[in-house]
Amino acid sequence: MAGEVIDAMRPYYSDKFFNPSANYLPARQVKQDIDSARSLIAYWLGARKPEIIFTAGATEANNLAIRGVLEAFPGSNIVITAIEHESVLNPANLFINNLAPVNKAGIVQPDKLVSLINDQTVLVSVMYANNEIGSIQPIKQIAQKLETIRIARKKKGNKLPLYFHSDAAQAPNYLDLHVARLGVDLMTINGGKIYGPKQSGFLFVKSGTKILPLIYGGGQENNLRSGTENVANIIGLSVALDKAQKIREAESKRLSKLQEKLISDLKDLIPSIVVNGSLTSRLANNVHITIPGQDSERLLFKLEGSDIYCASGSACSAAKGNLSHVLSAIGHSNDQVRSSIRITMGRATKESDLKVLIKALREIV
Amino acid sequence: MAGEVIDAMRPYYSDKFFNPSANYLPARQVKQDIDSARSLIAYWLGARKPEIIFTAGATEANNLAIRGVLEAFPGSNIVITAIEHESVLNPANLFINNLAPVNKAGIVQPDKLVSLINDQTVLVSVMYANNEIGSIQPIKQIAQKLETIRIARKKKGNKLPLYFHSDAAQAPNYLDLHVARLGVDLMTINGGKIYGPKQSGFLFVKSGTKILPLIYGGGQENNLRSGTENVANIIGLSVALDKAQKIREAESKRLSKLQEKLISDLKDLIPSIVVNGSLTSRLANNVHITIPGQDSERLLFKLEGSDIYCASGSACSAAKGNLSHVLSAIGHSNDQVRSSIRITMGRATKESDLKVLIKALREIV
Repeated sequence: MAGEVIDAMRPYYSDKFFNPSANYLPARQVKQDIDSARSLIAYWLGARKPEIIFTAGATEANNLAIRGVLEAFPGSNIVITAIEHESVLNPANLFINNLAPVNKAGIVQPDKLVSLINDQTVLVSVMYANNEIGSIQPIKQIAQKLETIRIARKKKGNKLPLYFHSDAAQAPNYLDLHVARLGVDLMTINGGKIYGPKQSGFLFVKSGTKILPLIYGGGQENNLRSGTENVANIIGLSVALDKAQKIREAESKRLSKLQEKLISDLKDLIPSIVVNGSLTSRLANNVHITIPGQDSERLLFKLEGSDIYCASGSACSAAKGNLSHVLSAIGHSNDQVRSSIRITMGRATKESDLKVLIKALREIV
Repeated sequence: MAGEVIDAMRPYYSDKFFNPSANYLPARQVKQDIDSARSLIAYWLGARKPEIIFTAGATEANNLAIRGVLEAFPGSNIVITAIEHESVLNPANLFINNLAPVNKAGIVQPDKLVSLINDQTVLVSVMYANNEIGSIQPIKQIAQKLETIRIARKKKGNKLPLYFHSDAAQAPNYLDLHVARLGVDLMTINGGKIYGPKQSGFLFVKSGTKILPLIYGGGQENNLRSGTENVANIIGLSVALDKAQKIREAESKRLSKLQEKLISDLKDLIPSIVVNGSLTSRLANNVHITIPGQDSERLLFKLEGSDIYCASGSACSAAKGNLSHVLSAIGHSNDQVRSSIRITMGRATKESDLKVLIKALREIV
C-alpha cells in the first residue's frame, strides 16, 4: 500500500472510529469524510457521487453488477467475453450467458461480441484490461455498438435496457476511467490493485440503472450495499485512486519503456520466447511469456530463489491448480499454458530490477 | 480499535501485502497467518477451521446465512424474531417469513417461536443479544426445541433440514460463543463491535450445512466468499475476538456493577424513568431508558455538549429517521420511542464517566 494511503487511513482506526450513520457530531464528520472521498472518486470518473457504490472489493462489485442486474430482469441473459475474471464468469454462470471469443492477441472483436446479443440480453460485461495477459479491450467501440442496438430496440418497442459493465480492476494505474468517454453504465474498481487496501473497491452505477442489492440491511450506499461503512478502506481507496490517476500517464510511459526493454532482452536471451497478448493494446506493467519446453512451476520456484516473485495464471486459479482459461481462450495448448509465466512490474520497478531478472533467467533456462 | 489489533494488522499493509492465493513463499506465509487466525477463532467457538467463513462484516454474514440457506431450498421459509437487526429482517423479507413476537422485556418466548415453524421452514434466526435494548435471547432453549422438531421431521419422513442461525454481533465481549453449547448451525460475528476493524466478521457454518454463496469468483473461503482475502482485517478480527473472549467474564462483572449503579443513579435523579429490556437477561454494557415527557433528540443534542455520545434507536435506522422497530416490538408507543435513549458503556468506561453523565442529565432534564 502507498504510504499516503496508510497515513490517510490511520485516524479511522482510533480517533475517528465512529459509525458514520450515528447522529453525534464526530460521527457526522466521519460521514463527511466519506462524502469527500466519494467526491474525489466521482471526479476521476466524471460521475456523480450517488453513482459510486462502495463494496468490499472488486469481486463483490462484479457480483453486484451481474447478480444485481440479472435478478432485476428475470428471464434475461448476459453476454461476456471468454477471458473475464472468475468474479464475472462465475456469477454469469448463474444465468443464461453467452461467451464472446477473443483473438490470438487476447482482444475481443466487437462485431463478434454484439452478434451474441439477443432481445433478452440485459447486460454486456467486458473487462477493461485482462488480469493475466494485460490486453486492453475496445470498450469505447463496444459501447458505440451497444448504443446502436439500444436505438434499434426502442424502434422495435423492446423496453429491456441493455447495460454495459466493465471490470476495470486492472485499469486505474494506467488508463482513463471517465465513464462517459468509455460509455459504460457500470464499472468495477479494485483498491487492492492500485496500492490501496485489500477488499476495498466500488461499483460505478449510472443513475437510473435498475439493479438489486446483494446485501440487504441498514440501507447504506444508496440501499445497494448495507453494512456499517469500512471507513478506513473507503478513505484509503480514494487516496489510492487519486494518486493512481494523477501519475498514470507518467507511469505508463515509464513502464512502457521498461516493458519494451524487458521483451527485447528476453528475446535476446531466449529467441524461442513468445510474448502472449497484444503488443499494441496492452497494460504497460505486464509481460506475459511462453518459454517453449520450460515448466512454469519450476521457473517460478527457481526465480523465487532470486527473490523474484512471478506468477502463472491468476492467483485465484493458481490456488486451485486450474489451468488458465485466459490462455486457453487465446488458443494455447495445455503444454503452452504450462510453459507460461507472467511478469508484473509496478511503481517500485526499476531498470536494475530487469537486469536481476534477466541474470536469474540466464542461469535457470 | 484495540491497540494490539492495530499493531497486529500493520504488517499486512506493507511488508506482508501479498495475495494469500499466490504461490511464492512470502504469500504462502500470509496464507499461513490467515490459517492461524482462523484456528484461534475456531478455538473460541469450539468449531473446526473450515467452518469459519470470513466476510466483510456482520451484515454480509447475516445475508449469507439467510439468502444462502433459503436460496438453496426453493419454496422454503424462515422464522425470525420481531427484534432482529435490519441485516436479518431485510434479507428475510425476500422470502416467506414469520416473525415471532417478544415480551415486554424484549425476550422471545421459545414456545411462541417454534409454533411458527411449519414443514417448509428451513431456517430459524434469533439474535444472541439485541443491539438496542441488550436483551439476551434464550438460544440454548430454542436450540433444544428445534432438535425435537428435527427428530419429529425425521419420523415423518420430511427431509428438509431445520437450521438455526444466531446473529451474535453483540455477544463476544460478554457472552460464551461455544457453538455446540449454544446449539447453533450458523452464527454471525462482527469485528467492529469488539474493538476490531469495521467490515470484518465471519459466519460460522456448521460442517454439512447446505448453503449457497452470495459472492462468486475465485472460490476463497471454502467457496462461500470469493474475493482476495482482507488479510489485515482477518488478522485484526482474530486478535480482537481473542481478547474479547479472554476478558469477557471480568468485563461483564465490572460493567454489571457500573450498569447497576447507573440505573440506580438514574432512578434517583428521575424517578419516572423506565429501563427498557430485561433486567436479568441483559448485556452488561447496555442501559436503555425512557424518560417520559422528554424528547430524545433534544437530550442527545444536549448530552453531546458534554461530550457524551448516546443514541436513539440503532445508527442504521437513525440515519433514515425511522422509529425503532425494537421498541415498537416491546410495546412502546411512538411517544415512548421518542423519549428513549440508549447509553452504551465499554472497555474505557469508568465510574467517573457515570458521574459526568448524571451531572449532565441533572442540568438538562
